[in-house]
Amino acid sequence: MEKKKKFAVLLAGCGVFDGSEIHEATMTLYAIMKNQGEYEIFAPDIPQHHVVNHISGAEMNESRNVLVESARIARGKIKDLAQFESKDFDALIFPGGFGVAKNISNFAFEGVNCTVNPETEKAVKDMVQDGKPVGALCISPAIMAKILDKPVLTIGTDDETAQALESTGATHKKTGHGEVVVDPKYKLVTSPCYMLDANILHIAEGADAVVKEMLKLLE
Amino acid sequence: MEKKKKFAVLLAGCGVFDGSEIHEATMTLYAIMKNQGEYEIFAPDIPQHHVVNHISGAEMNESRNVLVESARIARGKIKDLAQFESKDFDALIFPGGFGVAKNISNFAFEGVNCTVNPETEKAVKDMVQDGKPVGALCISPAIMAKILDKPVLTIGTDDETAQALESTGATHKKTGHGEVVVDPKYKLVTSPCYMLDANILHIAEGADAVVKEMLKLLE
Repeated sequence: MEKKKKFAVLLAGCGVFDGSEIHEATMTLYAIMKNQGEYEIFAPDIPQHHVVNHISGAEMNESRNVLVESARIARGKIKDLAQFESKDFDALIFPGGFGVAKNISNFAFEGVNCTVNPETEKAVKDMVQDGKPVGALCISPAIMAKILDKPVLTIGTDDETAQALESTGATHKKTGHGEVVVDPKYKLVTSPCYMLDANILHIAEGADAVVKEMLKLLE
Repeated sequence: MEKKKKFAVLLAGCGVFDGSEIHEATMTLYAIMKNQGEYEIFAPDIPQHHVVNHISGAEMNESRNVLVESARIARGKIKDLAQFESKDFDALIFPGGFGVAKNISNFAFEGVNCTVNPETEKAVKDMVQDGKPVGALCISPAIMAKILDKPVLTIGTDDETAQALESTGATHKKTGHGEVVVDPKYKLVTSPCYMLDANILHIAEGADAVVKEMLKLLE
């Protein structure tokens, strides 16, 4: 029997408005197992930028930790991203959610002048250096435009975000539900998911399509 | 075109150890849409029993609200359970997680002598009264043994929990991954999910099987 391909899944909290988008994260784990892969989950041990009440949208007077909150999605089976080593994995994948743009980068506030969490940047660069595929859903491709030199990617159809990313030299391709863009140079696979007006069926479809393309790149 | 069957999904927080189990909740939403249903999400506006660090298992010195945290899974589209009316729905379903046994009941602490959140109890009783199916995953069937008179149900294979439930007059049937028990008297559909040593594929299978049986009861 062929050895299962091992994915690292990088989370950025727990909840669309201040962490990882929960449906995208869950459907990513599901897609990996459904396609005969296996996974370990990582998150950086850093404070969240803020905590958002997901009903009102208001900031709450609390502080939470990205690793501790991500552990909710991981059912406790999670590692500090500081322990990530590219040699242990075949592929690396990022679900979306504002946590990607608020916690593991500050793209939500600084746009393309953002900085990216150093452990996250190192994880992506090490995988690319090793010729291993990196997947990014929803808003996650935005940090790839910062980490990599002029990648080809998609965040769906949002012109403002697409133009911002193109201003870094990245090439943006418009996509619909479940569609993926593959950049063969970096083995970067992206799909818009909830960057479009999507439902949970579209998210399952998008996550599955990204994982399948990543596995093709490993054949 | 036939009108879509409308499910109410009742959440109890966000995270397996102090709220709703995230994979079960997400896979329940997915199963509903995949089977041509639609859903609205509810949770009671009550404090969580406690907040658990999902890495260490330790209680955290924080307080969180069940409705506000459940909104993370619902992406903000959630209603206070006080607004639930059985006439608006064809079916009611409960994902599992300790929130069911700590927040919307105290089964985790009091066992079969537990009390159940009154709005939750009313929602179940109203649906049963109206002859509409109720689904319960994982540990959720435990509260059905309290709310209903001698139902037939499953929580998987855990003898201690099964015996506790049978002490109320309920009939417990052992089940494996993806298997469901249907009690035709109450139109109660149960499946063990993470009450077994399960992975996310089993959860998707279990949620899908419960939703399909509930839809059969609506034919």
